[in-house]
Amino acid sequence: MGRRNQHSREEQRKMALDAADALVAAEGLAGFSMRKVALTMGYTVGNLYLLFSNQDDLLAEVSLRTADAMYEYLRTVAAKPKAPLERLQAIAAGYISFANKHSFRWRLMFEHYLPPEKDHPGLDARQSALFEFVEEHLSPLLPDASAKQLRAAATALWSSVHGLCVLATTGKLNWSGIKDVRPLSDLIVRAFVSGLREERG
Amino acid sequence: MGRRNQHSREEQRKMALDAADALVAAEGLAGFSMRKVALTMGYTVGNLYLLFSNQDDLLAEVSLRTADAMYEYLRTVAAKPKAPLERLQAIAAGYISFANKHSFRWRLMFEHYLPPEKDHPGLDARQSALFEFVEEHLSPLLPDASAKQLRAAATALWSSVHGLCVLATTGKLNWSGIKDVRPLSDLIVRAFVSGLREERG
Repeated sequence: MGRRNQHSREEQRKMALDAADALVAAEGLAGFSMRKVALTMGYTVGNLYLLFSNQDDLLAEVSLRTADAMYEYLRTVAAKPKAPLERLQAIAAGYISFANKHSFRWRLMFEHYLPPEKDHPGLDARQSALFEFVEEHLSPLLPDASAKQLRAAATALWSSVHGLCVLATTGKLNWSGIKDVRPLSDLIVRAFVSGLREERG
Repeated sequence: MGRRNQHSREEQRKMALDAADALVAAEGLAGFSMRKVALTMGYTVGNLYLLFSNQDDLLAEVSLRTADAMYEYLRTVAAKPKAPLERLQAIAAGYISFANKHSFRWRLMFEHYLPPEKDHPGLDARQSALFEFVEEHLSPLLPDASAKQLRAAATALWSSVHGLCVLATTGKLNWSGIKDVRPLSDLIVRAFVSGLREERG
């Protein structure tokens, strides 16, 4: 175990996470195994289990990384447009293009189901941070909405964009002949916002 | 192989499909195996491979069944409300409650990725039938939309409902404290339709 002693526990965890992240990116959840991660690190599987208590734990950490990277990317994308509606549309399009580019990583965030008793507080926090980010950019368009109404609207809108993203990135819209989803994500944001504004008088 | 000779090929396929469907319903894609299906039928795995060329083929047939059952259910649900908007909202809520009730079956339709070279024409047809059903119920609300505009609107709207359904049925909205998604699916349909109508003048 000479190799193991060269690295601190923190370094070892980072190495494992790097290896797991690269493996998910290349092969997805279906091609993932603790054995492959250990092999890439040059460690034994037993050593890996000293760092992460099980595969679910390691995969949850990979998802946290993806969530952070996505959030960073969306902040960049949101910085460009000036008008609130265009900004929201840019965030929606950015969400879809991130999912397209990091397809296996992105799918892991949604397809890796933790058993209910193992809810990961970090992942819940990232999920809510994303919706709060949407709320923040939706609120200038719905200036007199209450906090509760704004939460419902942001949840409904982001679920909508997520749905388009899921279907587009998994080929489930192929039958429609629609190749470019940007007009659809623009439409979802525009129609939803304008409908809500009208409703609120 | 006495048992095998008791049944015609069609009967055997139906037995396999029944067994596979029940297995998916109970254990999901993760718990599925050709071995378990064969065992339930009292056949050998070799016999099963004479009926379905591989696991992907058998799973695709299970998804076709689910799609047909869902479609039947949505037709029933749509028959009740009189007003077009309420009917569309009932279909959206019906979609989500079907997914909740048949959670593993429903997930199989979306999480079982066939390799691109094996696109299943039957599944594509079911997918497009669902969107056409939505178009049919959206069109009275957008009377002067062209066929192309109606397709885009139905695709955008159904992707939206699908997204809410995915997040709600996989616990990804838990952080929000929202327990009942019906108000959110109603909101999505109502705001989207009203936004589109306003846009079209």
